[in-house]
Amino acid sequence: MNAYDRLIARFARIATVGEASAVLGWDASVMMPSGGAAARGDQLAVLSGLIHELTTATALSDDLAEAEQTPPSDPWAAANLRLMRHRYLQSVALPAALVEARSRASSSCEAIWRRARPASDFAAVRPALEEVVRLTREAAVALGEAFGMTPYDALMDGFQRGVRATDVEPIFADYATFLATALPEAEAIQAARGPGRPLRGLFPVAAQEALCQRLSAAAGLDYHHARLDRSAHPFSGGTPTDIRITSRYSEDECFQSLMGVMHETGHALYEAGLPPRHARQPVGEAAGMAAHESQSLLIEQQVCRSAAYLSWLGPQLHGAFGGEAAIYSAANLGRLLRHVDRGFIRVEANEVTYPAHVILRFRLERAMIAGDLPVADLPDAWNDGLRALLGVTPPDDRRGCLQDIHWYDGAFGYFPSYTLGAMAAAQLMEALRRDVPEVDEAITRGDLSPLLGWVRQKVHACGNLMGFNDLMRAATGKPLDAKAFEAHLTARYLTV
Amino acid sequence: MNAYDRLIARFARIATVGEASAVLGWDASVMMPSGGAAARGDQLAVLSGLIHELTTATALSDDLAEAEQTPPSDPWAAANLRLMRHRYLQSVALPAALVEARSRASSSCEAIWRRARPASDFAAVRPALEEVVRLTREAAVALGEAFGMTPYDALMDGFQRGVRATDVEPIFADYATFLATALPEAEAIQAARGPGRPLRGLFPVAAQEALCQRLSAAAGLDYHHARLDRSAHPFSGGTPTDIRITSRYSEDECFQSLMGVMHETGHALYEAGLPPRHARQPVGEAAGMAAHESQSLLIEQQVCRSAAYLSWLGPQLHGAFGGEAAIYSAANLGRLLRHVDRGFIRVEANEVTYPAHVILRFRLERAMIAGDLPVADLPDAWNDGLRALLGVTPPDDRRGCLQDIHWYDGAFGYFPSYTLGAMAAAQLMEALRRDVPEVDEAITRGDLSPLLGWVRQKVHACGNLMGFNDLMRAATGKPLDAKAFEAHLTARYLTV
Repeated sequence: MNAYDRLIARFARIATVGEASAVLGWDASVMMPSGGAAARGDQLAVLSGLIHELTTATALSDDLAEAEQTPPSDPWAAANLRLMRHRYLQSVALPAALVEARSRASSSCEAIWRRARPASDFAAVRPALEEVVRLTREAAVALGEAFGMTPYDALMDGFQRGVRATDVEPIFADYATFLATALPEAEAIQAARGPGRPLRGLFPVAAQEALCQRLSAAAGLDYHHARLDRSAHPFSGGTPTDIRITSRYSEDECFQSLMGVMHETGHALYEAGLPPRHARQPVGEAAGMAAHESQSLLIEQQVCRSAAYLSWLGPQLHGAFGGEAAIYSAANLGRLLRHVDRGFIRVEANEVTYPAHVILRFRLERAMIAGDLPVADLPDAWNDGLRALLGVTPPDDRRGCLQDIHWYDGAFGYFPSYTLGAMAAAQLMEALRRDVPEVDEAITRGDLSPLLGWVRQKVHACGNLMGFNDLMRAATGKPLDAKAFEAHLTARYLTV
Repeated sequence: MNAYDRLIARFARIATVGEASAVLGWDASVMMPSGGAAARGDQLAVLSGLIHELTTATALSDDLAEAEQTPPSDPWAAANLRLMRHRYLQSVALPAALVEARSRASSSCEAIWRRARPASDFAAVRPALEEVVRLTREAAVALGEAFGMTPYDALMDGFQRGVRATDVEPIFADYATFLATALPEAEAIQAARGPGRPLRGLFPVAAQEALCQRLSAAAGLDYHHARLDRSAHPFSGGTPTDIRITSRYSEDECFQSLMGVMHETGHALYEAGLPPRHARQPVGEAAGMAAHESQSLLIEQQVCRSAAYLSWLGPQLHGAFGGEAAIYSAANLGRLLRHVDRGFIRVEANEVTYPAHVILRFRLERAMIAGDLPVADLPDAWNDGLRALLGVTPPDDRRGCLQDIHWYDGAFGYFPSYTLGAMAAAQLMEALRRDVPEVDEAITRGDLSPLLGWVRQKVHACGNLMGFNDLMRAATGKPLDAKAFEAHLTARYLTV
């Protein structure tokens, strides 16, 4: 075996331990009795310690150096080797003591946040968040030095390799300008149109679950390689050949679970479509979190909230839940599923305002990591920022800077992925319509196979060969910008 | 940290990886979609490879040598250090190539057996079994040399440390003699008494499952630290603070699931009762498979098939399934649950004849490992042996030497544990009645807490401090023999 072949075996082994962790993580959220939590924490910590040891092993580092002396000519292998080096640098850049201190500070801060949020008591969690920010900045500086990036870029890079704040900034600025005129217009059109007639009655959980499973299967999810279960916070987990998606159900309404499951189905289809030839290799993984979000939002927003899909969905809902047929018309479902408002809460936001919530967080977290925004000033900066973007001010910190777990759990640099993903989904859909003009007509029959065929080839099968920027360029002919997303919103919300 | 403290940390880490494997194994049997099997096989193989690497690490071996120079004076620590050495020797005794060859031969043989059994085609699986026996003997010889034992004892030792074939032989011979007169007598008494009146009707699976969960909780299983699920082959798995038991259900009858769940509950209570202070250390584990089986059979056979328990169980069953009350009398339930016959199949055997099936297998596998019984002669030896013990001859190999998976999967030396466990359960129950005379009266009220209090102290809390032989001596005042079991059967089956 040459050095590169040895590296393949090493990284396959590391990825396989990661798969074990993924299944244990799913189990912890879905199956585990409460009394198993402490032991599970130990199990996950030991596995992640083993992954770290295997990734930073001297023998691996020696193999990397040897393989890099005669890099493979095959582009997949060459990219894989570069990603191996990147993975290695990420692992060795941070002293173990810092990793541990960060992990401990985040756990502690998150626990305090869980009490501070309902009490809307930012002061109670401020010292813990200051410590998290301090340690995160320290880690960001170390990573930035290792990769030759700014500290904040180094954090973003951990979620979405190759995307820089200077790439994101103009895209977000463009959208903020668009929003300033689009939002009042969308509201005026919506007001003129009048509200949708709500679906009333009870939506039995078993019927919702069966419908969700049927619709996700119809969208292409193969349940020989997947499960759908219930959890407090819906997510997509597991491994590419054994995908675990979850949802939660309320008997009062059915859209939350349905759109949630279709969102997770988009994530799952991406994992299932990754190139099997490069399974368990860095180059065979998804191209980062923005790319992942583009796939979930392609299904949930671009497809499932489209008039084409709703015209097919209506009869499915009517069959599952009964009642008056007229309520299930595509027009009425559209009014219900595409309602615009100026809420304070990101996770309850609509397609139009959601990016404003993300832009706010991007600006604030970048300033915090740069040292330009002291944690003590966060609540005011938050409220000022939201007012500037959406014209509303949170009445308290619970509905302001305390609403999201991310920072309190130590995740900085993740937020941009949500909106980059939404924009990427629109840009992919635009290119898809150009390449496969029959896609919308097929969707009106509930047939997603033309869409899936295209996206499998253009995105899923590319794995992590190109990274997000080049992937978008290759699939759509241009780098990511906000234009396709704005055109999509204009067509959906600003057209009478 | 001194060498012994380092060893504690090393073995805790190894055990924690083992816990991860246990949860993944449970998931594979209970939750995993079929398409996840290949990846799961890889995950389990990588984790067991890591466990092997961690156990055979030079640094661990150095710590062992250093710690043994000044062995700890605390008896738990001293026993733990001895068990660590034992575990280390087990891991290094076998060359990696042999371990892999055995694992591959067993997998291949088991796959052939799955087709050969329904076809009753021993010839088809014979070459594969010969290879398994050859490699198992090779491993047994290596382990025997490492531990100074006969090869067969070395295999038994892997399941039940410290128990030798020469210990088992006289106990089994005693029982064979007892059986020769007891079985015809029990049959005569049973014939004179007449058959029980069967419970008729349907037993809805949900009602069975709820009853099983309620009865196992009543027996002491804490569902904050446990789950009950369904699987094709019932088992008890998971970890001491997160126990996973499974059952299967048929709507035609309810006793199989009920007795199965109570059996697994016995295993689960043992795991849950292990000393937390020594969690994840060799000395904190269960005292082997015979000890484990003693705990499952203490609950299932000694308690749940007793007249005392049945008098309490009847009304529970009546409440769950309805019908005529008289059928649920302890006397009638006793006739149904304590029926003796001379079947060919071990897993369908009753308390009285089950040991005969085990004695047969013990004799045959010992002879195969010693080289005294060629695999080609197994079918005839099996049929002759069963005839000598039970007076019946299997009509074909499907109901003879092909019935059990164990040998075809490479497990030799395990079978004696079943009957040693049954005998140990009887001997423990005898000692328990002496120490806690009110135990049976409490059981008539469904109250197992006196029993559980005793067994927790005498067995569970001892972990692996003493090994099976000394554990029995400490708990019951004498080494294991067949007498208490024979007395138990005499009282239950030979008393009019």
